[in-house]
Amino acid sequence: MIEHIRIDSRSQNEFIELTQDLNRLVAECGVREGVCFVTVPHTTAGITVNENDDPTVRADMDATLSRIVPYLADYQHAEGNSAAHIKASLVGSSVTLLIRDGQLLLGRWQGVFFCEFDGPRLRDVYVRIVGL
Amino acid sequence: MIEHIRIDSRSQNEFIELTQDLNRLVAECGVREGVCFVTVPHTTAGITVNENDDPTVRADMDATLSRIVPYLADYQHAEGNSAAHIKASLVGSSVTLLIRDGQLLLGRWQGVFFCEFDGPRLRDVYVRIVGL
Amino acid sequence: MIEHIRIDSRSQNEFIELTQDLNRLVAECGVREGVCFVTVPHTTAGITVNENDDPTVRADMDATLSRIVPYLADYQHAEGNSAAHIKASLVGSSVTLLIRDGQLLLGRWQGVFFCEFDGPRLRDVYVRIVGL
Repeated sequence: MIEHIRIDSRSQNEFIELTQDLNRLVAECGVREGVCFVTVPHTTAGITVNENDDPTVRADMDATLSRIVPYLADYQHAEGNSAAHIKASLVGSSVTLLIRDGQLLLGRWQGVFFCEFDGPRLRDVYVRIVGL
Repeated sequence: MIEHIRIDSRSQNEFIELTQDLNRLVAECGVREGVCFVTVPHTTAGITVNENDDPTVRADMDATLSRIVPYLADYQHAEGNSAAHIKASLVGSSVTLLIRDGQLLLGRWQGVFFCEFDGPRLRDVYVRIVGL
Repeated sequence: MIEHIRIDSRSQNEFIELTQDLNRLVAECGVREGVCFVTVPHTTAGITVNENDDPTVRADMDATLSRIVPYLADYQHAEGNSAAHIKASLVGSSVTLLIRDGQLLLGRWQGVFFCEFDGPRLRDVYVRIVGL
Protein backbone atom coordinates (compact mmCIF):
# COMPACT_ATOMS: atom_id res chain seq x y z
CA MET A 1 0.00 0.00 0.00
CA ILE A 2 1.16 3.52 -0.72
CA GLU A 3 1.05 5.93 2.19
CA HIS A 4 0.82 9.66 1.86
CA ILE A 5 2.38 12.49 3.88
CA ARG A 6 1.00 15.99 3.45
CA ILE A 7 3.45 18.87 3.86
CA ASP A 8 2.67 22.51 4.40
CA SER A 9 5.89 24.37 3.61
CA ARG A 10 6.34 27.87 4.95
CA SER A 11 9.29 29.33 3.04
CA GLN A 12 10.59 29.49 -0.49
CA ASN A 13 13.45 27.18 0.48
CA GLU A 14 12.99 24.85 3.42
CA PHE A 15 14.17 21.47 4.67
CA ILE A 16 11.36 19.66 6.49
CA GLU A 17 12.24 16.54 8.43
CA LEU A 18 10.16 13.43 7.71
CA THR A 19 12.06 10.86 9.79
CA GLN A 20 9.48 10.58 12.56
CA ASP A 21 6.56 10.40 10.14
CA LEU A 22 8.32 7.67 8.19
CA ASN A 23 9.19 5.64 11.28
CA ARG A 24 5.58 5.94 12.42
CA LEU A 25 4.40 4.55 9.06
CA VAL A 26 6.91 1.70 9.34
CA ALA A 27 5.68 0.90 12.85
CA GLU A 28 2.01 1.05 11.80
CA CYS A 29 2.43 -1.38 8.92
CA GLY A 30 4.28 -3.85 11.12
CA VAL A 31 7.16 -4.50 8.74
CA ARG A 32 10.24 -5.67 10.68
CA GLU A 33 12.64 -6.19 7.75
CA GLY A 34 12.29 -4.46 4.42
CA VAL A 35 12.74 -1.40 2.27
CA CYS A 36 11.02 1.99 2.33
CA PHE A 37 10.68 3.97 -0.90
CA VAL A 38 9.89 7.67 -0.57
CA THR A 39 9.05 9.78 -3.62
CA VAL A 40 8.07 13.38 -4.25
CA PRO A 41 5.52 14.03 -7.04
CA HIS A 42 6.77 17.57 -7.62
CA THR A 43 9.35 19.05 -9.98
CA THR A 44 10.45 21.95 -7.76
CA ALA A 45 11.08 19.95 -4.59
CA GLY A 46 13.31 17.05 -3.68
CA ILE A 47 14.18 14.65 -0.91
CA THR A 48 17.50 13.96 0.76
CA VAL A 49 19.16 12.36 3.77
CA ASN A 50 21.45 14.58 5.85
CA GLU A 51 22.24 15.69 9.38
CA ASN A 52 19.23 16.37 11.61
CA ASP A 53 21.12 17.54 14.68
CA ASP A 54 22.59 20.98 14.00
CA PRO A 55 20.22 23.15 11.92
CA THR A 56 23.15 25.15 10.55
CA VAL A 57 23.88 22.19 8.27
CA ARG A 58 20.57 22.80 6.48
CA ALA A 59 21.21 26.55 6.48
CA ASP A 60 24.58 25.99 4.79
CA MET A 61 23.08 23.55 2.31
CA ASP A 62 20.31 26.00 1.46
CA ALA A 63 22.73 28.91 1.00
CA THR A 64 25.18 26.84 -1.03
CA LEU A 65 22.54 25.39 -3.34
CA SER A 66 21.24 28.92 -3.95
CA ARG A 67 24.78 30.11 -4.70
CA ILE A 68 25.38 27.25 -7.17
CA VAL A 69 21.95 27.66 -8.77
CA PRO A 70 20.87 31.28 -8.22
CA TYR A 71 17.22 32.25 -8.09
CA LEU A 72 17.80 34.93 -10.71
CA ALA A 73 19.92 34.15 -13.77
CA ASP A 74 19.62 34.05 -17.51
CA TYR A 75 16.86 31.40 -17.49
CA GLN A 76 14.47 30.76 -20.40
CA HIS A 77 11.65 29.24 -18.31
CA ALA A 78 9.18 32.07 -17.73
CA GLU A 79 7.70 30.95 -14.39
CA GLY A 80 10.58 32.24 -12.27
CA ASN A 81 11.32 28.86 -10.70
CA SER A 82 14.03 27.41 -12.92
CA ALA A 83 16.43 27.30 -9.98
CA ALA A 84 13.94 25.16 -8.07
CA HIS A 85 13.65 22.67 -10.95
CA ILE A 86 17.42 22.37 -11.24
CA LYS A 87 17.94 21.95 -7.49
CA ALA A 88 15.30 19.21 -7.55
CA SER A 89 17.34 17.18 -10.05
CA LEU A 90 20.60 17.80 -8.18
CA VAL A 91 19.16 16.55 -4.88
CA GLY A 92 16.84 13.96 -6.43
CA SER A 93 13.14 13.21 -6.10
CA SER A 94 13.27 9.91 -4.23
CA VAL A 95 15.19 8.08 -1.53
CA THR A 96 15.41 4.40 -0.72
CA LEU A 97 15.78 3.51 2.95
CA LEU A 98 16.40 0.15 4.58
CA ILE A 99 14.19 -1.14 7.39
CA ARG A 100 15.77 -3.27 10.12
CA ASP A 101 14.19 -4.41 13.38
CA GLY A 102 11.02 -2.48 12.62
CA GLN A 103 12.57 0.91 12.00
CA LEU A 104 14.51 2.85 9.40
CA LEU A 105 18.20 1.93 9.34
CA LEU A 106 19.71 5.42 9.55
CA GLY A 107 22.98 6.63 10.98
CA ARG A 108 23.08 8.42 14.31
CA TRP A 109 23.04 11.88 12.70
CA GLN A 110 20.87 11.11 9.68
CA GLY A 111 17.41 12.45 9.06
CA VAL A 112 15.21 12.34 5.94
CA PHE A 113 14.29 15.77 4.63
CA PHE A 114 11.70 17.03 2.19
CA CYS A 115 13.48 19.82 0.27
CA GLU A 116 11.17 22.68 -0.63
CA PHE A 117 12.69 24.85 -3.37
CA ASP A 118 9.61 26.78 -4.54
CA GLY A 119 7.42 27.33 -1.49
CA PRO A 120 5.45 28.07 0.44
CA ARG A 121 3.04 25.41 -0.82
CA LEU A 122 1.03 22.36 0.07
CA ARG A 123 3.10 19.36 -0.95
CA ASP A 124 2.81 15.58 -1.00
CA VAL A 125 5.20 12.74 -0.32
CA TYR A 126 4.43 9.11 -1.24
CA VAL A 127 5.78 6.20 0.75
CA ARG A 128 5.79 2.53 -0.15
CA ILE A 129 6.97 0.13 2.53
CA VAL A 130 7.87 -3.38 1.41
CA GLY A 131 8.39 -6.20 3.90
CA LEU A 132 10.82 -8.99 3.12
CA MET B 1 12.60 -9.82 -15.75
CA ILE B 2 14.77 -6.94 -16.86
CA GLU B 3 13.51 -4.89 -19.76
CA HIS B 4 15.66 -2.84 -22.08
CA ILE B 5 15.10 0.53 -23.75
CA ARG B 6 17.42 1.53 -26.57
CA ILE B 7 18.13 5.26 -26.97
CA ASP B 8 19.60 7.03 -29.95
CA SER B 9 20.72 10.42 -28.65
CA ARG B 10 21.23 13.22 -31.16
CA SER B 11 23.15 15.91 -29.27
CA GLN B 12 26.06 16.21 -26.90
CA ASN B 13 23.66 17.16 -24.12
CA GLU B 14 20.07 16.05 -24.36
CA PHE B 15 17.14 15.14 -22.11
CA ILE B 16 15.10 12.32 -23.65
CA GLU B 17 11.78 11.49 -22.07
CA LEU B 18 11.15 7.84 -21.14
CA THR B 19 7.83 8.16 -19.33
CA GLN B 20 5.68 6.67 -22.09
CA ASP B 21 8.11 3.81 -22.71
CA LEU B 22 8.16 3.02 -19.00
CA ASN B 23 4.38 3.14 -18.66
CA ARG B 24 4.09 0.83 -21.67
CA LEU B 25 6.45 -1.67 -19.99
CA VAL B 26 4.43 -1.46 -16.78
CA ALA B 27 1.21 -2.11 -18.71
CA GLU B 28 2.72 -5.01 -20.66
CA CYS B 29 3.92 -6.84 -17.55
CA GLY B 30 0.54 -6.47 -15.88
CA VAL B 31 1.83 -5.22 -12.54
CA ARG B 32 -0.85 -3.18 -10.75
CA GLU B 33 1.02 -2.34 -7.54
CA GLY B 34 4.79 -2.30 -7.27
CA VAL B 35 8.08 -0.55 -7.87
CA CYS B 36 9.96 0.25 -11.07
CA PHE B 37 13.76 0.49 -11.00
CA VAL B 38 15.41 2.25 -13.92
CA THR B 39 19.20 2.22 -14.33
CA VAL B 40 21.65 3.54 -16.87
CA PRO B 41 24.74 1.38 -17.58
CA HIS B 42 26.81 4.38 -18.70
CA THR B 43 29.19 6.72 -16.88
CA THR B 44 28.56 9.82 -18.98
CA ALA B 45 24.76 9.79 -18.83
CA GLY B 46 22.22 9.89 -16.04
CA ILE B 47 18.53 9.70 -15.32
CA THR B 48 16.26 12.17 -13.57
CA VAL B 49 12.66 13.11 -12.93
CA ASN B 50 11.62 16.66 -13.78
CA GLU B 51 9.04 18.74 -15.63
CA ASN B 52 7.92 17.37 -18.98
CA ASP B 53 5.59 20.21 -19.94
CA ASP B 54 7.65 23.29 -20.79
CA PRO B 55 10.87 22.37 -22.66
CA THR B 56 12.59 25.51 -21.39
CA VAL B 57 12.97 23.72 -18.03
CA ARG B 58 15.30 21.21 -19.69
CA ALA B 59 17.06 23.99 -21.58
CA ASP B 60 17.73 25.82 -18.30
CA MET B 61 18.86 22.62 -16.60
CA ASP B 62 21.22 21.85 -19.47
CA ALA B 63 22.68 25.36 -19.51
CA THR B 64 23.03 25.49 -15.73
CA LEU B 65 24.70 22.07 -15.45
CA SER B 66 27.16 23.14 -18.16
CA ARG B 67 27.85 26.37 -16.28
CA ILE B 68 28.47 24.51 -12.99
CA VAL B 69 30.55 21.81 -14.68
CA PRO B 70 32.05 23.34 -17.84
CA TYR B 71 32.96 21.21 -20.82
CA LEU B 72 36.45 22.71 -20.87
CA ALA B 73 38.37 23.14 -17.63
CA ASP B 74 41.56 22.00 -16.00
CA TYR B 75 40.63 18.30 -16.15
CA GLN B 76 43.15 15.45 -15.93
CA HIS B 77 41.05 12.85 -17.76
CA ALA B 78 42.30 12.86 -21.33
CA GLU B 79 39.13 11.80 -23.16
CA GLY B 80 37.53 15.24 -23.11
CA ASN B 81 34.39 14.08 -21.30
CA SER B 82 35.15 14.73 -17.64
CA ALA B 83 32.24 17.13 -17.41
CA ALA B 84 29.91 14.37 -18.58
CA HIS B 85 31.19 11.97 -15.90
CA ILE B 86 30.72 14.57 -13.18
CA LYS B 87 27.23 15.55 -14.34
CA ALA B 88 26.31 11.85 -14.31
CA SER B 89 27.14 11.59 -10.59
CA LEU B 90 25.35 14.85 -9.77
CA VAL B 91 22.13 13.74 -11.46
CA GLY B 92 22.50 10.04 -10.62
CA SER B 93 22.40 6.87 -12.68
CA SER B 94 19.17 5.35 -11.44
CA VAL B 95 15.66 6.28 -10.35
CA THR B 96 13.11 4.37 -8.34
CA LEU B 97 9.47 4.93 -9.26
CA LEU B 98 6.32 3.70 -7.57
CA ILE B 99 3.60 1.86 -9.49
CA ARG B 100 -0.02 2.36 -8.44
CA ASP B 101 -3.13 1.19 -10.27
CA GLY B 102 -1.05 -0.20 -13.12
CA GLN B 103 0.92 2.94 -13.92
CA LEU B 104 3.81 5.01 -12.67
CA LEU B 105 2.87 7.22 -9.73
CA LEU B 106 4.18 10.55 -11.01
CA GLY B 107 3.09 14.08 -10.33
CA ARG B 108 1.11 16.01 -12.92
CA TRP B 109 4.19 17.74 -14.32
CA GLN B 110 6.72 14.96 -13.82
CA GLY B 111 8.43 13.02 -16.55
CA VAL B 112 11.35 10.59 -16.43
CA PHE B 113 14.32 11.71 -18.52
CA PHE B 114 17.42 9.99 -19.80
CA CYS B 115 20.18 12.61 -19.49
CA GLU B 116 22.73 12.43 -22.29
CA PHE B 117 25.91 14.29 -21.38
CA ASP B 118 28.33 12.88 -23.98
CA GLY B 119 26.33 12.25 -27.14
CA PRO B 120 25.33 11.66 -29.74
CA ARG B 121 25.45 7.91 -29.04
CA LEU B 122 23.47 4.72 -28.89
CA ARG B 123 22.55 4.20 -25.26
CA ASP B 124 20.77 1.65 -23.08
CA VAL B 125 18.42 1.86 -20.14
CA TYR B 126 17.52 -1.14 -17.97
CA VAL B 127 14.17 -1.47 -16.26
CA ARG B 128 13.13 -3.94 -13.58
CA ILE B 129 9.46 -3.92 -12.61
CA VAL B 130 8.56 -5.63 -9.35
CA GLY B 131 4.97 -6.42 -8.45
CA LEU B 132 3.87 -6.49 -4.81
CA MET C 1 19.35 -9.89 5.63
CA ILE C 2 21.40 -6.71 5.75
CA GLU C 3 25.08 -7.06 5.04
CA HIS C 4 27.74 -4.70 6.23
CA ILE C 5 30.93 -3.43 4.58
CA ARG C 6 33.50 -1.69 6.76
CA ILE C 7 35.60 1.05 5.11
CA ASP C 8 38.81 2.57 6.35
CA SER C 9 39.21 5.79 4.38
CA ARG C 10 42.66 7.34 4.15
CA SER C 11 42.10 10.88 2.85
CA GLN C 12 39.77 13.79 3.40
CA ASN C 13 38.23 13.20 0.00
CA GLU C 14 38.41 9.72 -1.50
CA PHE C 15 36.47 7.47 -3.85
CA ILE C 16 36.69 3.85 -2.70
CA GLU C 17 35.42 1.17 -5.05
CA LEU C 18 32.92 -1.33 -3.64
CA THR C 19 32.02 -3.25 -6.80
CA GLN C 20 33.97 -6.40 -5.97
CA ASP C 21 32.71 -6.47 -2.37
CA LEU C 22 29.14 -6.07 -3.58
CA ASN C 23 29.46 -8.79 -6.23
CA ARG C 24 30.93 -11.09 -3.59
CA LEU C 25 27.91 -10.47 -1.34
CA VAL C 26 25.57 -11.15 -4.26
CA ALA C 27 27.38 -14.41 -5.01
CA GLU C 28 27.38 -15.50 -1.36
CA CYS C 29 23.64 -15.02 -0.91
CA GLY C 30 22.90 -16.97 -4.07
CA VAL C 31 20.46 -14.46 -5.57
CA ARG C 32 20.35 -14.85 -9.37
CA GLU C 33 17.75 -12.19 -10.18
CA GLY C 34 16.97 -9.26 -7.93
CA VAL C 35 17.86 -5.83 -6.65
CA CYS C 36 20.71 -4.64 -4.44
CA PHE C 37 20.19 -1.60 -2.19
CA VAL C 38 23.34 0.08 -0.85
CA THR C 39 23.11 2.84 1.77
CA VAL C 40 25.57 4.94 3.71
CA PRO C 41 24.66 5.78 7.34
CA HIS C 42 26.80 8.93 7.31
CA THR C 43 26.03 12.58 6.55
CA THR C 44 29.47 13.54 5.23
CA ALA C 45 29.87 10.68 2.76
CA GLY C 46 27.92 9.44 -0.22
CA ILE C 47 27.76 6.70 -2.79
CA THR C 48 27.80 6.90 -6.56
CA VAL C 49 28.27 4.90 -9.74
CA ASN C 50 30.91 6.11 -12.17
CA GLU C 51 33.90 5.03 -14.25
CA ASN C 52 36.27 2.57 -12.57
CA ASP C 53 38.83 2.35 -15.34
CA ASP C 54 40.79 5.61 -15.51
CA PRO C 55 41.46 7.04 -12.01
CA THR C 56 41.68 10.57 -13.43
CA VAL C 57 37.87 10.51 -13.67
CA ARG C 58 37.68 10.34 -9.87
CA ALA C 59 40.41 12.96 -9.57
CA ASP C 60 38.42 15.33 -11.79
CA MET C 61 35.21 14.60 -9.89
CA ASP C 62 36.92 15.26 -6.58
CA ALA C 63 38.48 18.52 -7.79
CA THR C 64 35.26 19.72 -9.41
CA LEU C 65 33.07 18.94 -6.39
CA SER C 66 35.55 20.85 -4.21
CA ARG C 67 35.46 23.78 -6.62
CA ILE C 68 31.64 23.85 -6.63
CA VAL C 69 31.43 23.38 -2.85
CA PRO C 70 34.68 24.73 -1.38
CA TYR C 71 36.04 23.44 1.91
CA LEU C 72 36.30 26.99 3.23
CA ALA C 73 33.46 29.43 2.69
CA ASP C 74 31.02 31.53 4.66
CA TYR C 75 29.46 28.51 6.40
CA GLN C 76 27.48 28.71 9.67
CA HIS C 77 28.08 25.11 10.77
CA ALA C 78 30.95 25.26 13.23
CA GLU C 79 32.46 21.80 12.70
CA GLY C 80 34.35 22.71 9.53
CA ASN C 81 32.69 20.02 7.40
CA SER C 82 29.77 21.84 5.80
CA ALA C 83 31.21 21.16 2.35
CA ALA C 84 31.18 17.44 3.11
CA HIS C 85 27.50 17.54 4.14
CA ILE C 86 26.53 19.39 0.98
CA LYS C 87 28.53 17.09 -1.30
CA ALA C 88 26.81 14.13 0.37
CA SER C 89 23.38 15.43 -0.67
CA LEU C 90 24.55 16.28 -4.19
CA VAL C 91 25.92 12.78 -4.78
CA GLY C 92 23.32 10.97 -2.66
CA SER C 93 23.52 8.48 0.19
CA SER C 94 22.19 5.37 -1.53
CA VAL C 95 22.24 3.55 -4.84
CA THR C 96 19.94 0.90 -6.23
CA LEU C 97 21.55 -1.72 -8.45
CA LEU C 98 19.96 -4.48 -10.50
CA ILE C 99 21.10 -8.11 -10.20
CA ARG C 100 20.99 -10.30 -13.31
CA ASP C 101 22.43 -13.78 -13.72
CA GLY C 102 23.88 -13.71 -10.22
CA GLN C 103 25.82 -10.47 -10.51
CA LEU C 104 25.35 -6.72 -10.52
CA LEU C 105 24.06 -5.42 -13.85
CA LEU C 106 26.60 -2.65 -14.46
CA GLY C 107 27.94 -1.16 -17.64
CA ARG C 108 31.41 -2.05 -18.88
CA TRP C 109 33.01 1.04 -17.34
CA GLN C 110 30.83 1.34 -14.24
CA GLY C 111 31.96 0.82 -10.69
CA VAL C 112 30.23 1.58 -7.39
CA PHE C 113 32.12 4.04 -5.22
CA PHE C 114 31.90 5.03 -1.58
CA CYS C 115 32.53 8.80 -1.59
CA GLU C 116 34.45 9.98 1.47
CA PHE C 117 34.13 13.73 1.92
CA ASP C 118 35.29 14.11 5.53
CA GLY C 119 37.98 11.51 6.11
CA PRO C 120 40.06 9.80 7.08
CA ARG C 121 37.61 7.73 9.13
CA LEU C 122 36.18 4.30 9.75
CA ARG C 123 32.95 4.12 7.78
CA ASP C 124 30.09 1.70 7.19
CA VAL C 125 28.03 0.70 4.20
CA TYR C 126 24.81 -1.33 4.46
CA VAL C 127 23.68 -3.67 1.72
CA ARG C 128 20.32 -5.37 1.30
CA ILE C 129 20.03 -7.91 -1.49
CA VAL C 130 16.53 -8.92 -2.52
CA GLY C 131 15.92 -11.94 -4.75
CA LEU C 132 12.94 -11.98 -7.10
